[in-house]
Amino acid sequence: MVRVAILGATGYTARELLHLLLRHPEVEITALTTRQDSRPHVGEVHPSLRDRLDLVLENLTPAQVAERADCVFGCLPHAASAAIVSQLLAAGCRVVDFSADYRLNDPEVYRQWYHVEHPDPERMPQTVYGLPELFRKSICNAQLVANPGCYPTAAILALAPLLKEGAIAPQGIVIDAKSGISGAGRSPKPHLHFPESNENLLPYGVGTHRHTPEIDQILSTWAQVETNVVFTPHLIPMDRGELITAYADASIEMSSDDLLDLLRRAYADEPFVRVIDDFPATKNVANTNFCDITVRVVRGKVVVFGAIDNLIKGASGAAVQNFNLMHSFPETMALR
Amino acid sequence: MVRVAILGATGYTARELLHLLLRHPEVEITALTTRQDSRPHVGEVHPSLRDRLDLVLENLTPAQVAERADCVFGCLPHAASAAIVSQLLAAGCRVVDFSADYRLNDPEVYRQWYHVEHPDPERMPQTVYGLPELFRKSICNAQLVANPGCYPTAAILALAPLLKEGAIAPQGIVIDAKSGISGAGRSPKPHLHFPESNENLLPYGVGTHRHTPEIDQILSTWAQVETNVVFTPHLIPMDRGELITAYADASIEMSSDDLLDLLRRAYADEPFVRVIDDFPATKNVANTNFCDITVRVVRGKVVVFGAIDNLIKGASGAAVQNFNLMHSFPETMALR
Amino acid sequence: MVRVAILGATGYTARELLHLLLRHPEVEITALTTRQDSRPHVGEVHPSLRDRLDLVLENLTPAQVAERADCVFGCLPHAASAAIVSQLLAAGCRVVDFSADYRLNDPEVYRQWYHVEHPDPERMPQTVYGLPELFRKSICNAQLVANPGCYPTAAILALAPLLKEGAIAPQGIVIDAKSGISGAGRSPKPHLHFPESNENLLPYGVGTHRHTPEIDQILSTWAQVETNVVFTPHLIPMDRGELITAYADASIEMSSDDLLDLLRRAYADEPFVRVIDDFPATKNVANTNFCDITVRVVRGKVVVFGAIDNLIKGASGAAVQNFNLMHSFPETMALR
Amino acid sequence: MVRVAILGATGYTARELLHLLLRHPEVEITALTTRQDSRPHVGEVHPSLRDRLDLVLENLTPAQVAERADCVFGCLPHAASAAIVSQLLAAGCRVVDFSADYRLNDPEVYRQWYHVEHPDPERMPQTVYGLPELFRKSICNAQLVANPGCYPTAAILALAPLLKEGAIAPQGIVIDAKSGISGAGRSPKPHLHFPESNENLLPYGVGTHRHTPEIDQILSTWAQVETNVVFTPHLIPMDRGELITAYADASIEMSSDDLLDLLRRAYADEPFVRVIDDFPATKNVANTNFCDITVRVVRGKVVVFGAIDNLIKGASGAAVQNFNLMHSFPETMALR
Repeated sequence: MVRVAILGATGYTARELLHLLLRHPEVEITALTTRQDSRPHVGEVHPSLRDRLDLVLENLTPAQVAERADCVFGCLPHAASAAIVSQLLAAGCRVVDFSADYRLNDPEVYRQWYHVEHPDPERMPQTVYGLPELFRKSICNAQLVANPGCYPTAAILALAPLLKEGAIAPQGIVIDAKSGISGAGRSPKPHLHFPESNENLLPYGVGTHRHTPEIDQILSTWAQVETNVVFTPHLIPMDRGELITAYADASIEMSSDDLLDLLRRAYADEPFVRVIDDFPATKNVANTNFCDITVRVVRGKVVVFGAIDNLIKGASGAAVQNFNLMHSFPETMALR
Repeated sequence: MVRVAILGATGYTARELLHLLLRHPEVEITALTTRQDSRPHVGEVHPSLRDRLDLVLENLTPAQVAERADCVFGCLPHAASAAIVSQLLAAGCRVVDFSADYRLNDPEVYRQWYHVEHPDPERMPQTVYGLPELFRKSICNAQLVANPGCYPTAAILALAPLLKEGAIAPQGIVIDAKSGISGAGRSPKPHLHFPESNENLLPYGVGTHRHTPEIDQILSTWAQVETNVVFTPHLIPMDRGELITAYADASIEMSSDDLLDLLRRAYADEPFVRVIDDFPATKNVANTNFCDITVRVVRGKVVVFGAIDNLIKGASGAAVQNFNLMHSFPETMALR
Repeated sequence: MVRVAILGATGYTARELLHLLLRHPEVEITALTTRQDSRPHVGEVHPSLRDRLDLVLENLTPAQVAERADCVFGCLPHAASAAIVSQLLAAGCRVVDFSADYRLNDPEVYRQWYHVEHPDPERMPQTVYGLPELFRKSICNAQLVANPGCYPTAAILALAPLLKEGAIAPQGIVIDAKSGISGAGRSPKPHLHFPESNENLLPYGVGTHRHTPEIDQILSTWAQVETNVVFTPHLIPMDRGELITAYADASIEMSSDDLLDLLRRAYADEPFVRVIDDFPATKNVANTNFCDITVRVVRGKVVVFGAIDNLIKGASGAAVQNFNLMHSFPETMALR
Repeated sequence: MVRVAILGATGYTARELLHLLLRHPEVEITALTTRQDSRPHVGEVHPSLRDRLDLVLENLTPAQVAERADCVFGCLPHAASAAIVSQLLAAGCRVVDFSADYRLNDPEVYRQWYHVEHPDPERMPQTVYGLPELFRKSICNAQLVANPGCYPTAAILALAPLLKEGAIAPQGIVIDAKSGISGAGRSPKPHLHFPESNENLLPYGVGTHRHTPEIDQILSTWAQVETNVVFTPHLIPMDRGELITAYADASIEMSSDDLLDLLRRAYADEPFVRVIDDFPATKNVANTNFCDITVRVVRGKVVVFGAIDNLIKGASGAAVQNFNLMHSFPETMALR
């Protein structure tokens, strides 16, 4: 039984994580934190959890957390997260960090996109990027895993094998992404007010979204050449679900079927990637840890599609998958 | 040409009013107010209006408004509204007030439900309730019209003729109401954040909603006996549209067809009430000033349905209808 | 390990049942049936199940089903269901029937509401109504359980204790119900076409909905006097979730708190009924087997609210709960 | 007063057209056709139009239509449309054709994408493409106008000026398009059933959508070189609204501001194109005839956004705009 804590347990990713962990036979949830001092019951904060978990959210120090937990899931904002994670690691905890703090290798790139100094820059290059399909072995041995962003998860899973096999050119890749609104978090904002977001569709963060350098970094490794994607996210009037539609120039003459075969081979043994013949629909992966992928050649462009649930495979499900690997539990435990 | 101002022009009812007034051939929009001092352009505040109206929102005194406008639409919060309306009236303006301030006759009832002293109590009993189908004649001559609440509009239109004709008992009336979320206004709130409201359905304000005394007052007049309704509103995950389902005890033996006939006779000459055979659907009245009504007898209960667009017939459309009556324009001008 | 079959496995309730059963440690799914002869793979019929279950849907006779399964979940239409269920019982299977065929005791009432002769009328009065909170003991020993309708589940759980304790009058009860659109099944129909249902709200089946006699029957038993409810369902533009708002006359003077206490005592030991202080929201029970209930006294009327997920507690979750009781598994297995 | 008929008046585009025409001071609606013989009243077919128009839908011959109408709006399916349009033209009617039949110049391209022989191929190359912003002069004098497809409208308005001015390369243009579901028409289909489409997001018609050759043809004219776009539409869970996100290689070094200036100059005098600084949101153009456009340079790619209401600027509003030009009415009549 692993004693588990969640830092910053008020948001949507924490709620989804709790739903998953409550079904996990090897987990005991021992601490939930918040910066509020009012000690709200988890059932007040997340009414779906009433009568399912009897814990209050507490304003705990890292030392207090480390006393109660063997493994910590961090759902804190970037920069705030790294400050605490380093203390938890020093105290012997294992950590799955949902924030962006340890996803990037390069403190300079971090400063450029996040506009703050990284509080723990030395640890950046040595931290494993928690995408099991690409970095399973390193995850198994890690004390700290950087849980990937939602868009990067879908984009990298769709594109990495095509880049690795040289089927597409690493330059000029366009990633047109669409996400349900839970991806924007739980804090009310004017443009996320129901009558504004509902029946509406719009782009945001064009050229400035912080998932861009994360995608660049991993795809560059995979392509073995620097890759800079054009990434354009859009808000879709639905709760959850994310689709990326990526466009790349074909490097070699391959048919849609050839490319499907390539992807099928790449993911043959993966429990959570389904390479499918028809087009991915977010509803088929909603509330699951699956990523559905397909590919087509259209007028010389390779068009790849990847669909995930942004809160599960794009966040909390991936975190549990990483947790399972780190603790040598079956990878699919609590996830299927 | 009537020079028109809108007070509190940042919300949804003001936006809808602007959409309607822009099509009104007898209206010149001369002033829009806000409590902010930044003088934002109307196209910034309401992007749907970009390039359609070249005005800035200004923080104007009542005197400044009265100088520019013959008729003023007030979209201010209760209490704040009455304080300004009385000055506008004194300055000779005609006013259509969207707030609740002049809907109730009795300052004591106002205090009980709104928890503030009314700033202008003497004017309350003499102000006409702006439901043209019931009070057309008084509206035509009024300097001030109290524009009805959205729920009261649908509820009163559905129930008043049945009460007046003695078809239903005035005691024990239940009004189960459902509204799209624009009815809750434009300010972001945690429970109206898209991922909270979407795919969700819940009651609110049970036994405490401020439209209750307004419905009581008008129905009591119509029934000629005190009537106290049980009113239960619910939030529905859609932008606009409102349905009331009302349940009353039958007073006399009448069939569904008899009651439909009664309603048809009552509304035979009304341009915006449609008594229909099948069940009202909010989508059929969305973006219109219509109220669709039907009635059934079920196991001795009379069940009446009324559907409106909460922002049009439930607010801005009704206001334009009142404006037309006050200025002897055709009642349907800019509304069909 | 119980070998399980699902009859009529193409619909939404079957899909949800499969999601639940795949997590059930004591279940082996051995057969899925359809009236089509094309033997489609379950992953084609329900793309969310791709790679999770390797079975084809087959056009099997009851005898073939009985050979493969110990327990059968029937998701067939009414009348069609009873014809097959009787054969399965004769062959020794245990059955949880989702259809309405064995919910009513009286063949005459069945004919009146369903407009067909019941194929197996003798079995009607002796079949247990599968609402564990009311009939747990009988369910444990049953070979056949009639799984309740979704609206009756929410309505009965909300009202039964109040009737039993004499807190409300059994006459004149109004049940205003609201449901997400998955409740209408998977067959496309003009009024359920997305651009018709979306952003729309309307009543249907007023005075004629077939869940009415089911509610009457159970509430009459509980009230020990004939009870005929006025039941009015409405379609809400969301996938899943159901709320009933019931109105009854208070029989005795009790406060909201008194009534909440009454309900809390009634459901103190129930794993899936949560009596809550604030108002139930369907989102808090979505994708769960919970029913959230609260109650208020408003102007002498008792107003009770009950929220469920129509596909889980209102169908497939209840079926698994019944299955667990029938097989002496922990009642919450695969459900929390 | 122009006497106007609508062919195929049962669908969404016809309904929107009726809403607009009812406000048009120079139009008398004299005939509505359908292939059914039951002569349904327009208020039955489109309940939003109850009490607003007293006409039945009739199964009329082209000759009967020509007798009653000076101008005909054709909302018929492709191929069916051309067969009738040619007869109407011969009878002296003016025609705005919503179908694809006269949009393409080349019968061979038509056969390739629509898989039928064109019934009236000679007229194809001489028919004007009804996009007023590009072909205003020809529209004014036309007897027949081919009303553009919804996606082409948004895509061409966004891209044409950039191509014309040589700011982007005509090769390798990617158009990632997103549309509300009304664009798929009024016929119920399994994948458009509310519980399938709602909370879902998926691509369709990848590489095969019939709007592709239409976009190619007009952009090729504007670029003065053959242009073949990669066009990928997606279904978005909302009623109406369409956004295209187009990606092109920059031909010359220009900043986002430069490109915004270019677009502003191109559309300076257009009543229905708004070049905006922030990102277009479909909600700001919903129920209007506006197209909102912006552009950004991201890592060397030019990213252009265009938003329209697919049923208004993408269909019925454009048709009225064309109608106004053809009859020398003010272009914005009934549209603002």
